[in-house]
Amino acid sequence: MNELSLVEQLINALRILPGVGPRSATRMAYNLLHHNKDKAKQLANTLLNTLDNIHNCQKCNNFCDKELCHICSNNKRDASRLCIVEMPIDLHMLEQTQSYNGYYFILMGKLSPLDGIGPKDIAFEKMLYRAMEIEVKEVILATSFTTEGETTAYYIADILRKKGIHVSRLARGVPAGSELEYVDINTIARALVDRKSIS
Amino acid sequence: MNELSLVEQLINALRILPGVGPRSATRMAYNLLHHNKDKAKQLANTLLNTLDNIHNCQKCNNFCDKELCHICSNNKRDASRLCIVEMPIDLHMLEQTQSYNGYYFILMGKLSPLDGIGPKDIAFEKMLYRAMEIEVKEVILATSFTTEGETTAYYIADILRKKGIHVSRLARGVPAGSELEYVDINTIARALVDRKSIS
Repeated sequence: MNELSLVEQLINALRILPGVGPRSATRMAYNLLHHNKDKAKQLANTLLNTLDNIHNCQKCNNFCDKELCHICSNNKRDASRLCIVEMPIDLHMLEQTQSYNGYYFILMGKLSPLDGIGPKDIAFEKMLYRAMEIEVKEVILATSFTTEGETTAYYIADILRKKGIHVSRLARGVPAGSELEYVDINTIARALVDRKSIS
Repeated sequence: MNELSLVEQLINALRILPGVGPRSATRMAYNLLHHNKDKAKQLANTLLNTLDNIHNCQKCNNFCDKELCHICSNNKRDASRLCIVEMPIDLHMLEQTQSYNGYYFILMGKLSPLDGIGPKDIAFEKMLYRAMEIEVKEVILATSFTTEGETTAYYIADILRKKGIHVSRLARGVPAGSELEYVDINTIARALVDRKSIS
């Protein structure tokens, strides 16, 4: 085995992290080996432990280590609202706002006709069953605001509305903290159309 | 154990990577768990394997898995030149230039009087012995161009010169590819002082 190869193997392995190119991976590898040996070992063990023990919640698809995730197994939340998201990280972001108390369903993807990804390739049918449970009064579509996310939202909205379920979508508009000067014109155009009366 | 905690543990563990804040760590954790389970396992195992098997070259302090690193054990290199760097990653960067064929010595730090880091806290004495080996004709100081790096370079240069060893320092100047407009004035001032005649 070549002497450099251990470090090089580590640099290559670190490249799988999103947003990490050769330069960052090199910096990370040397940093872990020199400054952070104990914490690096902890990182490796935490990663192995998480990979071995994590699976998806049977009800909403969220990551968890039991049958139901901590949200689905919490009966103090508002069962009349169901928020549909694409991926577990979207649920994580919504939870961090601390402004939603309903339940979630994770599609594990989005419709993308151009890539041949249809309703059968995501958890669409499971979502339908979940949305039609008797206590659900409103389905909030929180798929992303990209072409695929919008397609997914419209497709779901269309089907659920026909089944008499009230459907809503996250508001579009100017991001909090933005100066108009730096906001893209599509966002401004949308924010104009969706403007809200100040009462 | 809380259901979210596995993911949260992983997010916290990823925070030890340099330049990774809470947002990036979250993105990395969800990305690893969803898209890259196999490669994530490989990353964890590579990290453990590297941590367990790596140590420092007895001669130059570079990372390696044998007694001597692949550079020190290569007798085809130019033994008359010894390049002194602060950390293993600096050696890595110099090697990538493919324009140096001598040997290295890694100080494993730099002098920083303000932080109480003196010659005894880095591999200074070991460096002295290495630099005074009979075949070494030139010591190239490649410590960084910060206050501490410069202090370290001057301290070493002073001692080695008194022992009759020829000492040089990496050239200071305008970085390759720069437009003067964007270069800081200290760098331009230095490049003026150190200007080279075109023969």
